[in-house]
Amino acid sequence: MTSTSPHDLWRALISDVPDWPEPGVTFKDITPLLADGVEFSLVIDAMATSWAGRVDVVAGIEARGFVLGAPIAHRLGLGFVPLRKQGKLPRDTHAAQYDLEYGTATLEVHADAFAPGARVLVVDDVLATGGTAAAAVGLVDRAGARVVGLSVLMELTFLGGRATLEGSAPDLPLHVLLAY
Amino acid sequence: MTSTSPHDLWRALISDVPDWPEPGVTFKDITPLLADGVEFSLVIDAMATSWAGRVDVVAGIEARGFVLGAPIAHRLGLGFVPLRKQGKLPRDTHAAQYDLEYGTATLEVHADAFAPGARVLVVDDVLATGGTAAAAVGLVDRAGARVVGLSVLMELTFLGGRATLEGSAPDLPLHVLLAY
Repeated sequence: MTSTSPHDLWRALISDVPDWPEPGVTFKDITPLLADGVEFSLVIDAMATSWAGRVDVVAGIEARGFVLGAPIAHRLGLGFVPLRKQGKLPRDTHAAQYDLEYGTATLEVHADAFAPGARVLVVDDVLATGGTAAAAVGLVDRAGARVVGLSVLMELTFLGGRATLEGSAPDLPLHVLLAY
Repeated sequence: MTSTSPHDLWRALISDVPDWPEPGVTFKDITPLLADGVEFSLVIDAMATSWAGRVDVVAGIEARGFVLGAPIAHRLGLGFVPLRKQGKLPRDTHAAQYDLEYGTATLEVHADAFAPGARVLVVDDVLATGGTAAAAVGLVDRAGARVVGLSVLMELTFLGGRATLEGSAPDLPLHVLLAY
């Protein structure tokens, strides 16, 4: 007799795509998981529930962090703040450049996005090298709020993101559904 | 004595940004509305509820359509399919080029994104010229499913998007919260 946990189902709905976006990188495609109504709903609930009452607002990192972060905000009855790629936000912004697993990028947030001192949950699909998450923590800080948690669907443990994040945001509570 | 409808509150939380992204265009910035937990929740409910039982899956147009479409999918207990900008999806795709209010763009969807014949609700923040929405309808069709409704937060009526959409998707049910 075998038992199947939700985690096994979720792993089965995440596709490995070799050599994307560049040779040598294996991309984990979560679109089959998102497209499954029952499992998508369970994933959002699992990523959201432990934060109820502990955060004031949810910030999602463009673009897959929007797909997870916005429903998490709705599930918690909270507002949602987009952390966007360069040049996408129309008003005054703070910006942070950072290194990706492949290349560099810039993340921006509206300067008035948060109420002063707001407790922010940052959401993304994956914790890889930790560069994006560390940039998000810095951006929220510069916008006058504070990150009190990071919730990701997947952690690619072999890329050492947890240590990078620890360097810039010591003791930040980190919630991971699936570790690879 | 005056009364205030939710629509008035929502309009007050959408900022006009003149000359963005280019001179002569006034951009409607919904980030203050997204950041308000109560009103964001009401907006998602208002965009979702009339579609319950009438659609099988929700498709959101990158990127603001992700912020609205993903919570609508979660609210309805349905899966979510991202319609993405060029080069963002890792597996085999269909693509459609279209004209924007400013410039052109390409929208892509995974070729296997939908179950055959699935009833799809397309979600975006705004109906402007209708080019994006018409491209989305065509993409879903090519992927073997069919769009049975379009739900947008705002319609910029002076840009004639409804007529454009009628030309490519006659009698498509269109749900608009705020008309400008």
